[in-house]
Amino acid sequence: MDPLTRLREAIGGPHGEAADAARRHLDTLTKPPGSLGRLEELAVRWSALTGRPPRVTAPVLFTLAADHGVVAEGVSAYPQSVTAQMVENFLRGGAAVNVLARQVGARVVVADLGVATPLGAPEGLIVRRVAAGTGNIARGPAMTREQARAAVEAGAGLAEEAIAQGADLLGTGEMGIGNTTAASAITAAITGAAAERVTGRGTGVDEAGWERKVAVVRRALEVNAPDARDGLDVLARLGGFEIAGLTGVILAGAAHRVPIALDGFIAGAAALVAVTLAPGARHALFAAHRSAEPGHAVTLRHLGLEPYLELDMRLGEGTGAALFVHLARAAAAIYAEVATFKSAGVDGPA
Amino acid sequence: MDPLTRLREAIGGPHGEAADAARRHLDTLTKPPGSLGRLEELAVRWSALTGRPPRVTAPVLFTLAADHGVVAEGVSAYPQSVTAQMVENFLRGGAAVNVLARQVGARVVVADLGVATPLGAPEGLIVRRVAAGTGNIARGPAMTREQARAAVEAGAGLAEEAIAQGADLLGTGEMGIGNTTAASAITAAITGAAAERVTGRGTGVDEAGWERKVAVVRRALEVNAPDARDGLDVLARLGGFEIAGLTGVILAGAAHRVPIALDGFIAGAAALVAVTLAPGARHALFAAHRSAEPGHAVTLRHLGLEPYLELDMRLGEGTGAALFVHLARAAAAIYAEVATFKSAGVDGPA
Repeated sequence: MDPLTRLREAIGGPHGEAADAARRHLDTLTKPPGSLGRLEELAVRWSALTGRPPRVTAPVLFTLAADHGVVAEGVSAYPQSVTAQMVENFLRGGAAVNVLARQVGARVVVADLGVATPLGAPEGLIVRRVAAGTGNIARGPAMTREQARAAVEAGAGLAEEAIAQGADLLGTGEMGIGNTTAASAITAAITGAAAERVTGRGTGVDEAGWERKVAVVRRALEVNAPDARDGLDVLARLGGFEIAGLTGVILAGAAHRVPIALDGFIAGAAALVAVTLAPGARHALFAAHRSAEPGHAVTLRHLGLEPYLELDMRLGEGTGAALFVHLARAAAAIYAEVATFKSAGVDGPA
Repeated sequence: MDPLTRLREAIGGPHGEAADAARRHLDTLTKPPGSLGRLEELAVRWSALTGRPPRVTAPVLFTLAADHGVVAEGVSAYPQSVTAQMVENFLRGGAAVNVLARQVGARVVVADLGVATPLGAPEGLIVRRVAAGTGNIARGPAMTREQARAAVEAGAGLAEEAIAQGADLLGTGEMGIGNTTAASAITAAITGAAAERVTGRGTGVDEAGWERKVAVVRRALEVNAPDARDGLDVLARLGGFEIAGLTGVILAGAAHRVPIALDGFIAGAAALVAVTLAPGARHALFAAHRSAEPGHAVTLRHLGLEPYLELDMRLGEGTGAALFVHLARAAAAIYAEVATFKSAGVDGPA
């Protein structure tokens, strides 16, 4: 069986009994039932996925990088050189995701899935290059179907390696100048939303730049006519090697029942593809935050996920996922450490 | 000069230049300007208050406890005995606020401002009792004006002691069966909102209990006719020794330019009183989260504050403030540790 089929077939539904047991335990703790809101829901969903209460000892963030041929259309405020420069910044530990990952003791896996600018072989970089950037989706497909599959399997391989080493929470992150355009096209294709609803300012284009970007997304959809029910077709036509890699991370997490802290809009596009390939993957996804990119709300609605944080962030890299690690640990600590009404001798409702 | 007047006169406006300098520094970091959203805004507001970028080394949460005569009206799902029992739980470290405070290395100051049930002298309890619970606000005033002042000054004294020992972030928390009813009455009095808009389920009363609670809030407002422009009058008539104590914590933080992580609905009522006494106190307040109590949105709008977290929590104790400590540290780490475009050799906008 090929690796992708193996992952898809391994993805099952939630453990209802473990979720019920978690809910019952939370209601014995010294607090009004449900009064810790989303922290309790997080613990229940975690239990439903893993069969155990939350516990985060080895979180790993996957910051996957690749370039996008669509930058030729002038859709980004920054030059393509920035993708490679930011990869070097990640490897030196100087980017926002590094800072927030250090704060929670998360490891950051930095992988080149298809950066256009030559990177040499900097220490720490994991090289899983599929090609030197995608094709320009405004004029043709991003990649071949075989390349899409290779990128998904590369991401899944990285995640499975981390899981084998004990990772108990996976975070999705990315870097790729132009990748909000690819994510907008993927989101429009899978959710059916209009291009202008799922296209934002990205790194910060102006009004004229935004209008150009919307037109490019529309053109990408027309030129490529992806089959929305076929995740690999959507990836191949609208691309993103890093997005495909994150689809693989998500599928691997779901297959091994390891929770995934889903970052922002671009990671969301990867999740849309993942649930197209395996609907059960949804149960493994924890929407870390809602991005300021307007399309992200459309993504989360389609996925049926409520974000935990809404901090108007729109950086990507895995920054939202890094913040989520603290919330997951908070839920774990509440579950494990709060005294019960019985043990603390506190009276219940009158 | 009396202590309260001294605090009120010490509260000044924001440092505009420090805020501008913080904004300029954030824009040199390797990320699109503003792309870390509320984390950046947090750093700017912190700088405006303290004159320095955020830094959290010694956070202290104040979990103040007191009882409420209004429980005689049947407004709570839990018996009054729970206030004292939860104080003992706090002192043993078994409550949710202890768990979340440990997670971020925050000290929890547990103080008795007026618990009705005798507590003895358990280790660690700080005793600043004003009386053994308030009067029933449905029938008369909660306390005298002198008692209100004493409770405010007691809270301020606790905060000033912590600040003298190096506290650089103060969190507000509380425990008091019946205190959502007092908070609803205070919120209605100061914001002018109707009783039914600012009254929620508290610890979890049913529909009939909620209707009774709304009627009690209305009656408390009619019977006491507080002067909304006079914070001490509102406190004296509608009460809460712990609420008054938190007003003191807030005024002391603002006077010493130490940021305050404002917890939920009840702490919000204390903040409403604080800004009535000293409008400049608003600049020291960071709304940690928005509670699931419906009145909290009214409070935050009146205070002009945007919450950082919205996790449907409604426990109080300081649990939201404890979670905020992580966000403040995230903002501090971003400010101090992210590489600049120049130092990292990353190109700016094309």
